[in-house]
Amino acid sequence: MNQKKITACLFGAGEMATIHATNLISDPRVDLRYVVDPSSERAHALAAATGAQVVGPDAAFADPDIRAYLIASPPRTHADYLERAAATQAYVFCEKPIDHDIGRILDCMARLKGREDRVQLGFNRRFDFQFARLKDTIRAGHIGKVEQVLIISRDPEAPDVEGFIHSSGLLKETAIHDFDLVRWLLDDEPAEVFVMGDALINPEYLTVGQIDTTTTALRMRGGTHVTILNSLRASFGYDQRIEVLGSLGQATVGNVPESLVVLSTADGIWGEKPLWNYPQRYAQAYRSEIASFVHSVATGAAVTPNAFDGLRASQIAEAALLSMSSRLPVPCDNPL
Amino acid sequence: MNQKKITACLFGAGEMATIHATNLISDPRVDLRYVVDPSSERAHALAAATGAQVVGPDAAFADPDIRAYLIASPPRTHADYLERAAATQAYVFCEKPIDHDIGRILDCMARLKGREDRVQLGFNRRFDFQFARLKDTIRAGHIGKVEQVLIISRDPEAPDVEGFIHSSGLLKETAIHDFDLVRWLLDDEPAEVFVMGDALINPEYLTVGQIDTTTTALRMRGGTHVTILNSLRASFGYDQRIEVLGSLGQATVGNVPESLVVLSTADGIWGEKPLWNYPQRYAQAYRSEIASFVHSVATGAAVTPNAFDGLRASQIAEAALLSMSSRLPVPCDNPL
Amino acid sequence: MNQKKITACLFGAGEMATIHATNLISDPRVDLRYVVDPSSERAHALAAATGAQVVGPDAAFADPDIRAYLIASPPRTHADYLERAAATQAYVFCEKPIDHDIGRILDCMARLKGREDRVQLGFNRRFDFQFARLKDTIRAGHIGKVEQVLIISRDPEAPDVEGFIHSSGLLKETAIHDFDLVRWLLDDEPAEVFVMGDALINPEYLTVGQIDTTTTALRMRGGTHVTILNSLRASFGYDQRIEVLGSLGQATVGNVPESLVVLSTADGIWGEKPLWNYPQRYAQAYRSEIASFVHSVATGAAVTPNAFDGLRASQIAEAALLSMSSRLPVPCDNPL
Amino acid sequence: MNQKKITACLFGAGEMATIHATNLISDPRVDLRYVVDPSSERAHALAAATGAQVVGPDAAFADPDIRAYLIASPPRTHADYLERAAATQAYVFCEKPIDHDIGRILDCMARLKGREDRVQLGFNRRFDFQFARLKDTIRAGHIGKVEQVLIISRDPEAPDVEGFIHSSGLLKETAIHDFDLVRWLLDDEPAEVFVMGDALINPEYLTVGQIDTTTTALRMRGGTHVTILNSLRASFGYDQRIEVLGSLGQATVGNVPESLVVLSTADGIWGEKPLWNYPQRYAQAYRSEIASFVHSVATGAAVTPNAFDGLRASQIAEAALLSMSSRLPVPCDNPL
Repeated sequence: MNQKKITACLFGAGEMATIHATNLISDPRVDLRYVVDPSSERAHALAAATGAQVVGPDAAFADPDIRAYLIASPPRTHADYLERAAATQAYVFCEKPIDHDIGRILDCMARLKGREDRVQLGFNRRFDFQFARLKDTIRAGHIGKVEQVLIISRDPEAPDVEGFIHSSGLLKETAIHDFDLVRWLLDDEPAEVFVMGDALINPEYLTVGQIDTTTTALRMRGGTHVTILNSLRASFGYDQRIEVLGSLGQATVGNVPESLVVLSTADGIWGEKPLWNYPQRYAQAYRSEIASFVHSVATGAAVTPNAFDGLRASQIAEAALLSMSSRLPVPCDNPL
Repeated sequence: MNQKKITACLFGAGEMATIHATNLISDPRVDLRYVVDPSSERAHALAAATGAQVVGPDAAFADPDIRAYLIASPPRTHADYLERAAATQAYVFCEKPIDHDIGRILDCMARLKGREDRVQLGFNRRFDFQFARLKDTIRAGHIGKVEQVLIISRDPEAPDVEGFIHSSGLLKETAIHDFDLVRWLLDDEPAEVFVMGDALINPEYLTVGQIDTTTTALRMRGGTHVTILNSLRASFGYDQRIEVLGSLGQATVGNVPESLVVLSTADGIWGEKPLWNYPQRYAQAYRSEIASFVHSVATGAAVTPNAFDGLRASQIAEAALLSMSSRLPVPCDNPL
Repeated sequence: MNQKKITACLFGAGEMATIHATNLISDPRVDLRYVVDPSSERAHALAAATGAQVVGPDAAFADPDIRAYLIASPPRTHADYLERAAATQAYVFCEKPIDHDIGRILDCMARLKGREDRVQLGFNRRFDFQFARLKDTIRAGHIGKVEQVLIISRDPEAPDVEGFIHSSGLLKETAIHDFDLVRWLLDDEPAEVFVMGDALINPEYLTVGQIDTTTTALRMRGGTHVTILNSLRASFGYDQRIEVLGSLGQATVGNVPESLVVLSTADGIWGEKPLWNYPQRYAQAYRSEIASFVHSVATGAAVTPNAFDGLRASQIAEAALLSMSSRLPVPCDNPL
Repeated sequence: MNQKKITACLFGAGEMATIHATNLISDPRVDLRYVVDPSSERAHALAAATGAQVVGPDAAFADPDIRAYLIASPPRTHADYLERAAATQAYVFCEKPIDHDIGRILDCMARLKGREDRVQLGFNRRFDFQFARLKDTIRAGHIGKVEQVLIISRDPEAPDVEGFIHSSGLLKETAIHDFDLVRWLLDDEPAEVFVMGDALINPEYLTVGQIDTTTTALRMRGGTHVTILNSLRASFGYDQRIEVLGSLGQATVGNVPESLVVLSTADGIWGEKPLWNYPQRYAQAYRSEIASFVHSVATGAAVTPNAFDGLRASQIAEAALLSMSSRLPVPCDNPL
């Protein structure tokens, strides 16, 4: 039986890697053979929990049985692993972004030319059933022609300054999800982007070149206006909402509360906060994106979202960054 | 101009009387001539605020100009005033109940025989536009044949024991509104009633023959099940809700919040409490019932709800009381 | 490894049995060895889907490896299987009710005397995390002393008359869940019950001795009032709500919508219906009750809810039935 | 008595003038003496309904009894009337905008120098009790330091192209309300504005120099990000919402539905649309702004919002217009 299983290798042993590992091993089609992580402790912990072995990258890429590489290591390592994985016959699942540097991403794309449909990007929100139902509603024509879109995407807790130094930042690591969502939801591309970005939560972020609050306006090629509100801190929890106005009406998805218990007292009417952060809010989406990836590997089908989607989202993020620093609107089509 | 106005006389100078007086004087068709109340201080205060004179009952009934008597004095005085007013040609607006004693009500009805359509009872909730919209929804057939009704009707603050001694009690003073609502909403009569009544909020109420919590089940002649939940204390405010299940669906009206402000913090998602008590929740209904009464006086039209409605609600309350004390279901059609 | 697994046997191959089978096989601690069902076709279909074998009851009870019997066959077969299972050393999971006949249940209880804590009853709603959170809220004292409880529990689709002939009826098969919920939620027992029951949806049900709509009032020993509204048809879907009023406030759980998409058009503001029926609404509860059962088997712990809970819920249902037919309130403590 | 009343004169007899007239005459302190409108028919209709006389502007300004001029005529007439009224001792209530042309407004301001506090601008939304409660919540510190604001302000029905020719446009006539709201809500001034404006609803608007959809990003002097979404058509009704995110949480005000009736059927859960347009949604705000104005006249107090507020909102609108046409962000402080 086992030789028919999809033998998989996972890069990374942190939070995202653990989420993917859990979903992988609960799929009876998958045999998670390797965990690769520079921290031996972390790697062995995850390997022990999942029945995998700890190996180094060279051993991992040398095993001809591997049919699926999953890259959930820090962003700066993605492009290298992606290129090495692309040199094999295996499918690849790669967390976003492909790289912080758009030039490096383009190099990478050149190397995996012709194989983009075998590289799935970790834009999990496309797999959230709430957002999928929203897209169905739009496609079914219930709101007519789309005119104005609002995405609110805020984290519950801002990192401390030290923890933020090596991040590629709010636009390239967080808002990139929203840039992908917009493309997917509207089947359209941004033509121009304008971004206001500031360190309103913690001005010290500026000392490490980071900001915490962005307001982004996009004009799509088809004319639709899109606004994205990002922040690193909504004190009440992960704030993830979408509103779409069209010629015939509006469709929205609000936050998912922890439970439906409502408490009414002399102090007011109290409802539960949204699910606290991404592991809770997008648990189903993480399961579904891995299931979709495994299905592609098993059947030889094209993945979605693929490497091109990863490039496009990073190109928009790059234009957004340029807009923020120049304080001017920037075209998205050819941002470099 | 003034001789064409509707000259009115108000009995009572307490909270309900003040609400009615305010609505009367804001109607340009009405001249509020007299306020009658045994407390001279209270009577003069209300008279001063409304431009009326203070007189005694005899003078009030002797004035042939009076075209509208409004009775908002304590319940034990209603029947006397009602009979005296009914001996004139004037219209009468009478707060509920007509009397605590069903025999006294029947005597009263005998005396005003043939004039029942000129005596409006103070069942203000029929005039609430939310409930009226609910009734429209039912009548329009949107929920089909009605099967199961739920009325929740709870006060925000229970009186102290002393303040409760002279009350005709929860069933005859509070639930009577719900008995009327049921008849109006369903255009049907209760056939049988079963009531559980207890002093759960304050067991000392039992020492003055009162209870504070009732659960009432009614079977209507047409078969519909009705449940009424009454309590003297919902700590979060006046709890006034209706749900109606029919063969095609359900229609509901929930509580009206003080404002639509929603506050989301680390402690949860917080909304405003319902409007605190009847003066706030039913402000529009009080205005509308007086406007409807004035319209009847001005045009000679029949009032609604009328004296028969007052009798019927009291008969149901009487049956409810008998059910509570006997701990048995009691027929409503001929409760005596 | 396998000899350490919990070898299990499932009676029934219908809808509930399939739900339990699916949850059983997804638990790595369980080896589902047998499926037992008089319909060979159905039994083989479920066995094929779960890797089990089809056997008859005698073989099933003769296998000394079986550590867990799960009874999800039609209600009339429960008591027999339960007694035979209780004669082994295995744990038993039994769908409600134990039997339609309260005498039969008492016989059954006598036979499994001393082993009640190894017999779990299928009152899944105790495991719903929404209701559990509600109970936590009550226990934490947030609403003070409980005074008035409302349970609304309505199915989305009424069966046709033929499909209803062999049912033990709305009170014994559906409301029994609510009777258990009340006991669990309040840690209290009903003292008295009054039920109005009618065939309002389909009067033909009366020809097979069935009704479709009940309104139930319970007074608990501790004084709390409980109302349960049951119906076989809420056209908009499975209507499962709880409201609890206490001295300090109210706690509620509403319906769980299919998604959070809200569509606003010229026709109004439109939200999704509740999850359609029990397999959707209580999917998590079904998983959790089986996980709890498996945990008890694995650790030798007492199950909950247990056989006594099954007896109590059936005793309340019996009293409710007597109240409905006699049209009188009936004590719950010693209903026979 | 009458000589102590506030004798008032109203310019305009259209929809807004009628709303103000109705509120004026229901205030017992006010004697509405004149209605001025070039359409004799319209003027006489409103005068008849309110007990006023129809006169021309010269007579209106010549009457030394007039203590309050209210200007609710078309925008192009505001500045002239305002200057003439300012030459008297009377208070002035002027609908927004003071003029379409910022130069004309500055001339006007020069003429009424020193009297700005006697000129109230018709920014009615400041008087909406929902928004006032929102501001109280912010001021009370419940959400901490404000970081990100969202205002959604959409009309229910777009005008036809002809009806739009003489309008000063979406930014100067509609969004101007939102520019004022932002200043009032945050007690802060915009430093920079960026606007995307397009004719997405009806491309023919471009032929008369108009657009129908704007997305506006403002950076306040204090750093706060503000987004304003405007549209001439939300098919489900007047869409008027505010969200404010701060360091400790978020406060929002949603739409006010026509009623609280909720209908649940096989088609879904259906709620009422928002109140249809400004006369319905802001009925209370229109009453309160006139009451506030009358109070200022009666007591000699300064009005609010005043002429400076009118100037500032128009300056922001002018900057917004420049941003829209130049497709660049524009500073707000010194937009000319």
